[in-house]
Amino acid sequence: MSNLHHMPGRVQSVERAAAILQVLAVEAQPTPLHHLAAALGLAKGTAHGLLQTLKDVGFVDQDEESGLYAIGAGLLELAAPKLDHNELRSRALNWTDALAGRTHLAVLVGTLEGDHVVVVHHVLRSDESPVTTTTGAALPLHGSALGKVLLAHDPRAMRSARAGELESRTYRTVVDWPALQRQLADVRDVGWAAEVEEREPGVAALAAPVRDRSGYVVAAIGVEGAPDELCDTRLRPRPALARQVTDAARAVSRELGHGRRT
Amino acid sequence: MSNLHHMPGRVQSVERAAAILQVLAVEAQPTPLHHLAAALGLAKGTAHGLLQTLKDVGFVDQDEESGLYAIGAGLLELAAPKLDHNELRSRALNWTDALAGRTHLAVLVGTLEGDHVVVVHHVLRSDESPVTTTTGAALPLHGSALGKVLLAHDPRAMRSARAGELESRTYRTVVDWPALQRQLADVRDVGWAAEVEEREPGVAALAAPVRDRSGYVVAAIGVEGAPDELCDTRLRPRPALARQVTDAARAVSRELGHGRRT
Repeated sequence: MSNLHHMPGRVQSVERAAAILQVLAVEAQPTPLHHLAAALGLAKGTAHGLLQTLKDVGFVDQDEESGLYAIGAGLLELAAPKLDHNELRSRALNWTDALAGRTHLAVLVGTLEGDHVVVVHHVLRSDESPVTTTTGAALPLHGSALGKVLLAHDPRAMRSARAGELESRTYRTVVDWPALQRQLADVRDVGWAAEVEEREPGVAALAAPVRDRSGYVVAAIGVEGAPDELCDTRLRPRPALARQVTDAARAVSRELGHGRRT
Repeated sequence: MSNLHHMPGRVQSVERAAAILQVLAVEAQPTPLHHLAAALGLAKGTAHGLLQTLKDVGFVDQDEESGLYAIGAGLLELAAPKLDHNELRSRALNWTDALAGRTHLAVLVGTLEGDHVVVVHHVLRSDESPVTTTTGAALPLHGSALGKVLLAHDPRAMRSARAGELESRTYRTVVDWPALQRQLADVRDVGWAAEVEEREPGVAALAAPVRDRSGYVVAAIGVEGAPDELCDTRLRPRPALARQVTDAARAVSRELGHGRRT
């Protein structure tokens, strides 16, 4: 690791901080202070000061119980895509209206905000049905179709979810991590997510990822309605509806530049 | 930005370096030195020393011509998943053998190495056909099916490809960035990649992503053969074959822990 050899004219503490991050990345699991100090040939006090600084800026996480250090969420944030909600709304508008018209369901567009999904755009369903979700609503990551899409594709969403509890909303909410991990793997494989009464009795939803020009999943678009409107008699999401939702999500992705030169 | 207020007991130059990275991430485009110095209230010389150090450790890139600064590939590396080739090979073995047996095609497993794909595992086809690719071979990212899968899903692969030229291998190689971007968007949407005589005349290939337990694409698995073995009469990849390859890739992903609690 060349960082350990201080170059004249360079800032030594920054070189050392970078070396700490590189060791944490290679370890790929929570690491004790003494290991980091030994690996870099630093006094424990020096390593501790650097680690506290890296923790303050969010580049390192420290487990409260064990005191072990790991790469922090702030580093992921640096590489994370930026998305303008107004641009997303205006780019999505035509496609969400068309999807609502074709499916006769409510259509939602959501993005990650902290530890939940925020609904940034909402199209009322064409009939007189009561409204279950509106613009500005906060939905749980693990208990909504929009949220499952974000959990499956955005490492920041997963970090937020893992920092808290999997809260139960209905008796169908998946509050078991292994079961949720299996669901998310399926979401990555098939390209869409569904939930049936996991967030609210009598409501089901189906959603697909919206990507920016770099291919990052920056939002999710979905439909919401009664379970028997979205699913067959065995409560499995209708494939034709999943196709309509993924087609709309791809169209919005193209509007955001996905498939155009970055 | 709280980093600009130095906390006692913290390492000030590390706080400042972190603040520079945060400004570069927010700017999301190459940024001049004077802008960074002004944004952080630093003397140009101070900002320059920090930037040179960040450049040396790979956290910042500087464009040679314009002198502008941007977030560097080294930061992406920190968050990147680590993969043991031996583990990948041993986990993939049963599934690649089964795929070769079912398709009567050669089967390849590849991972990113620098600016190319390295073939880490190879199953000969069951007939006596000549071998076109072997273990250890280096394939182009843009001109191979394995490479297109990695380009579509691993930001490090895209960075490597964009740093160089899109070299022409045959008259069918896609050497046009907008066309390649459209192909990669399709790869993300459908879940597999194909190439017909883009790398070598008389050879076609089809590949799908292998994910680790966090959902990161860490490898690609694919089949290779003659164009008329992989495609219909209009040179479109056969859907049934694409399904066999994606099923095998998903099985290997499950072996690597995809879908199990991280």
